[in-house]
Amino acid sequence: MGWFTNVLSAASFRTDKLCKTNLFETERMFCDVYGFEPGQTQSGHVHEGSDKVYYVVQGEGAFSVGEEERTLGVGHAVFVPAGSVHAVRNVGAGRLVVLVIMAPKP
Amino acid sequence: MGWFTNVLSAASFRTDKLCKTNLFETERMFCDVYGFEPGQTQSGHVHEGSDKVYYVVQGEGAFSVGEEERTLGVGHAVFVPAGSVHAVRNVGAGRLVVLVIMAPKP
Repeated sequence: MGWFTNVLSAASFRTDKLCKTNLFETERMFCDVYGFEPGQTQSGHVHEGSDKVYYVVQGEGAFSVGEEERTLGVGHAVFVPAGSVHAVRNVGAGRLVVLVIMAPKP
Repeated sequence: MGWFTNVLSAASFRTDKLCKTNLFETERMFCDVYGFEPGQTQSGHVHEGSDKVYYVVQGEGAFSVGEEERTLGVGHAVFVPAGSVHAVRNVGAGRLVVLVIMAPKP
């Protein structure tokens, strides 16, 4: 991928699980776009040494960080500090597209 | 700022120059939202040891990285590897709002 990307166009989808597409990667950060069909999830997990940002590009997702969960639409960001359990679920009727940035690359 | 943020609502603006608002910061990354009134710019500059991602949340901007320049609207991302000259200019009629992530914090 080059330096300039249409994030929505770059998103891909699979019938069996969420689809991750890499947009940019160095030793300092990586940037993916995740495509979720309705009902698909990213299960709770932890990155011990990396921070993560989610930004909702399309659709509506339930995002949890630690004990907190919020349902968020386009224009919202979620910050996940290293060591926090976090998860995502597409709770909308349509597709969910999320820009994901982690630093450093785990 | 907490873990969950409405990026557009968090953006601020100034009459004299672009306005930077911090959303999240650790030693591994920081995340800002930049508000540009029409015509405002971020001049060309370089971060020798940090990568940057710009994501257009609202409006239309001219983004340059090295020798390349593109005019981009909502939904587009720009990746700036460490060591590359980069700049932004609000070329639209309205406000430009950009999500900015750098890793590590310079």
